[in-house]
Amino acid sequence: RTLRIGLIPGDGIGREVIPAGRRILEALPTSLGLKFSFVDLDAGFETFKQTGVALPDKTVETLKKECDGALFGAVSSPTTPTKGYSSPIVALRKRLDLYANVRPVKSVAPTPAFPDPIDLVIVRENTEDLYVKEEKTYDAPNGQGKIAEAIKRISERASSRIATMAGEIAIRRQKIRDTTGDTTGKKAMVTITHKSNVLSQTDGLFRATARTALEQQRFKDAGVEIDEQIVDSMVYKLFRQPASYDVIVAPNLYGDILSDGAAALVGSLGLVPSANVGDGFAIGEPCHGSAPDIQGQGIANPIATLRSVALMLEFLEQEEAAARIYAAVDGNLAEGKLLTPDMGGKAKTEEVVDDILRRL
Amino acid sequence: RTLRIGLIPGDGIGREVIPAGRRILEALPTSLGLKFSFVDLDAGFETFKQTGVALPDKTVETLKKECDGALFGAVSSPTTPTKGYSSPIVALRKRLDLYANVRPVKSVAPTPAFPDPIDLVIVRENTEDLYVKEEKTYDAPNGQGKIAEAIKRISERASSRIATMAGEIAIRRQKIRDTTGDTTGKKAMVTITHKSNVLSQTDGLFRATARTALEQQRFKDAGVEIDEQIVDSMVYKLFRQPASYDVIVAPNLYGDILSDGAAALVGSLGLVPSANVGDGFAIGEPCHGSAPDIQGQGIANPIATLRSVALMLEFLEQEEAAARIYAAVDGNLAEGKLLTPDMGGKAKTEEVVDDILRRL
Ligand SMILES: CC(C)[C@H](C(=O)O)[C@@H](O)C(=O)O
Ligand SMILES: CC(C)[C@H](C(=O)O)[C@@H](O)C(=O)O
Repeated sequence: RTLRIGLIPGDGIGREVIPAGRRILEALPTSLGLKFSFVDLDAGFETFKQTGVALPDKTVETLKKECDGALFGAVSSPTTPTKGYSSPIVALRKRLDLYANVRPVKSVAPTPAFPDPIDLVIVRENTEDLYVKEEKTYDAPNGQGKIAEAIKRISERASSRIATMAGEIAIRRQKIRDTTGDTTGKKAMVTITHKSNVLSQTDGLFRATARTALEQQRFKDAGVEIDEQIVDSMVYKLFRQPASYDVIVAPNLYGDILSDGAAALVGSLGLVPSANVGDGFAIGEPCHGSAPDIQGQGIANPIATLRSVALMLEFLEQEEAAARIYAAVDGNLAEGKLLTPDMGGKAKTEEVVDDILRRL
Repeated sequence: RTLRIGLIPGDGIGREVIPAGRRILEALPTSLGLKFSFVDLDAGFETFKQTGVALPDKTVETLKKECDGALFGAVSSPTTPTKGYSSPIVALRKRLDLYANVRPVKSVAPTPAFPDPIDLVIVRENTEDLYVKEEKTYDAPNGQGKIAEAIKRISERASSRIATMAGEIAIRRQKIRDTTGDTTGKKAMVTITHKSNVLSQTDGLFRATARTALEQQRFKDAGVEIDEQIVDSMVYKLFRQPASYDVIVAPNLYGDILSDGAAALVGSLGLVPSANVGDGFAIGEPCHGSAPDIQGQGIANPIATLRSVALMLEFLEQEEAAARIYAAVDGNLAEGKLLTPDMGGKAKTEEVVDDILRRL
């Protein structure tokens, strides 16, 4: 089978890590019976500066018509307000209805602060909440400057499907723990994150809908527990007892914040992958940004991207190929010799990729 | 001078820690020339269950007419949606126009994870953002369930005054570092937190207005640097390099989340105070919640409340009295013998309070 993959490097180090993603796909053993073809696609702030459009229609159309999946690098945000510019990744998520942003966070090794292994996944709703970007600005009465408003929109439909996805991921993770002889004693659990003590209607709807979705019989049968945390308390607990969490489901903005927070627990954003997932389509995307400070030096950590490749493959139902990549990355990290500077090492992006390809 | 202080214990352990706050005020040395009188006031979920109102008008009126300041304990949130209930602390902040929520976070001792001393303060806007609680629910078109919307409102006026307060706090902190011979080399800096890469109008207004406010000549003269972070990245950095931050200013919701996150860095929410500050009025409030799990056992950590008393006194311009309390608390923590269970000790609330009063 041949899978066609769109490559959207975007800005900054996106251009250094996406080629690594392509390399690992090309290096997968032929015994897996998978072939890949690639198409290079534009998006990002550079694209905006050159063409006036951050996400060209051609990119969206090619993804829709030709591709099975894609890899997205990173985008730079303008440092000053820029008329007409709007984040292309946010737009892409909506235009392809990639309704889930799945962000697994796994510790490399025990540390004094976190002796127990961290292995959780944040399942972030990816299409609504404040990300609908419906804003307006008007003059305050009595001349006291301007006032701006944004809409936070939460729907039963989006809340239900994201919670259902979270439940399914909880089942899949439990199966993997069962087959690999997990010794952590972790239980399948989905923690619903919200702020319904203040936002009783919007976050209240998210909370109630997620709960109903997770009470479906198949989740009960699989022993998936339902837990909940108010978002501020969730951030606190994430840092105090990260090992106790399994799957965390959250509306878009809380999910955005929580996943960066969780990344901090495992040492580097450069390790944390994500996948933007819709029905039958997935875009792998490292959680880190375009990192202009290290751009062009060839020292970006490729691991977040390589893991995002694996995550994309999982959602394209290529679990064996995905498992190969995860194992190769874990091998590199366990040895701990070839590490990029964000991990305290001195290796270049290329050297880390070479090492991981050898382990495939 | 006699200061009249409203005491609002609220729910759960609020009823155990607010009496500690009263005790320390009564125990302040008479040489400070300060006297206190107290008035007990109702608010909370218990009050709601008894009277149908979470924040009685009488509480608000008494605070406005009679009091110089107040102490607020904590409130329980209903675990199931409860018609007519609305958080009394959110209402109180708005009705008294306590526009700033000031939350200093200071580490007790170096730890392997955080070898450098953490000493930062989160200055949270306290009256608007999603906390305006303007929500509505309607049926989705084509029968796909419900949709709920909330308004996030950001005004130039509120953004400007909170940033100005943050700048002033930065100056005050620098003065204290100068006079106490600080050796950390920390510089006065205000970090503006926002998500203007997605919310260009609302968070864009917060960012631009805060920047303008902090560019005022008196802040420049005092050497207050202006820094900014996107909120997800702020959470990441807060956990990776908390020692590099001084004053963090944020809209209401990000401030709520960030302050719980920062509390996790210093070991326990039970240590972190806050003050709700308006022009000429301040309510001290521990950052922790009502903690129903430990309620009634007499083991709640009183330190967050005692520090909140000190913080309230600072904003009532009683800096000497405040300094006494901080020093007594620091003495208890430095000795590390009498600690409540959240800190890994076995002491009761009363014992910790007794120890701290001895050190006044
Ligand atoms: C770049 C930005 C718009 C984006 C987001 O907020 O979703 C990023 O933070 C992410 O998490 O992918
Ligand atoms: C109880 C809740 C409404 C409150 C808030 O969100 O402000 C609390 O989390 C706080 O930080 O004081």
